Amino acid sequence: MSTVYFTAASLDGFLATADHSLDWLLSQQIDPRGPLGYEAFSDGVGAMAMGANTYRWILDHHPWQYTVPAWVFTHREFPPPDGDVRFTADDVAAVHRAMAEAAGDGHVWLVGGGELVGRFADRRLLDEVVVGYAPVTLGSGAQLLPRRLDLELREVARNGAFLCGRYAVRR
Amino acid sequence: MSTVYFTAASLDGFLATADHSLDWLLSQQIDPRGPLGYEAFSDGVGAMAMGANTYRWILDHHPWQYTVPAWVFTHREFPPPDGDVRFTADDVAAVHRAMAEAAGDGHVWLVGGGELVGRFADRRLLDEVVVGYAPVTLGSGAQLLPRRLDLELREVARNGAFLCGRYAVRR
Repeated sequence: MSTVYFTAASLDGFLATADHSLDWLLSQQIDPRGPLGYEAFSDGVGAMAMGANTYRWILDHHPWQYTVPAWVFTHREFPPPDGDVRFTADDVAAVHRAMAEAAGDGHVWLVGGGELVGRFADRRLLDEVVVGYAPVTLGSGAQLLPRRLDLELREVARNGAFLCGRYAVRR
Repeated sequence: MSTVYFTAASLDGFLATADHSLDWLLSQQIDPRGPLGYEAFSDGVGAMAMGANTYRWILDHHPWQYTVPAWVFTHREFPPPDGDVRFTADDVAAVHRAMAEAAGDGHVWLVGGGELVGRFADRRLLDEVVVGYAPVTLGSGAQLLPRRLDLELREVARNGAFLCGRYAVRR
């Protein structure tokens, strides 16, 4: 079981524009079944965590499609969730224990945003980063991972318009 | 002849730490003769341009090793240069004309920083971006390319510790 930050970013390391838009990302070509794609990754996920902005974005754009338990780190109020969503403002280490237990043999997926993932990294709970760079620069926005970390490149791929890398976090 | 931003960055899109350190970068393994490496690229360079911070960094760390003419965009005073270095505060389009003429059949290399490269992009003078991502996140520092640009992925490679991509700028 690994705790994996699986995400996409602009070439200059942003997850979203300052006004939370992903239009620049969703217009890009990718094969979810291709190398380092979403399909193989998501098959191995047993629990997921995200921040309030990420959850808000999903609510605004999709029906809830996830079958594994999700923890949303937030101080905001949200409507009652459609799926197995647990709102929390607890310490990430305590939540991570619950997530790992729920995930069983599956991975813990850190969906975003960057500051939340950084809090897992601060507690040495982040094992891997998988990032797909979209062929776009944004110049500003939500940062990929606002921490000073050393990683190790494990796998490189091209998937459609994306330059993809898989990394282990060094401790 | 192309105008190419050939550079390295952290995974989160920084060229250097806020205090201009490249220690996190220079400690990484790379083969200059490997794919998307410096050697093949620099063989094709006929002129180069950089900002004052980049020039300052080179002066502080190396003897001047370049044989093609270099333009340094600066308002600062520097000591008389060791090589063919031309200090300028002119408009990038005017300087680009002089660089292209000097480069002949060679490429114009935009060394950095990001804001200077952005000024070339603003004038539609940036053709390609080649970026090698070092397996590090910095969290803050000098931005890779602080503009909103669309690019097209042309080539992907792994070179040592680096995830490398070559891009054409879309216009």
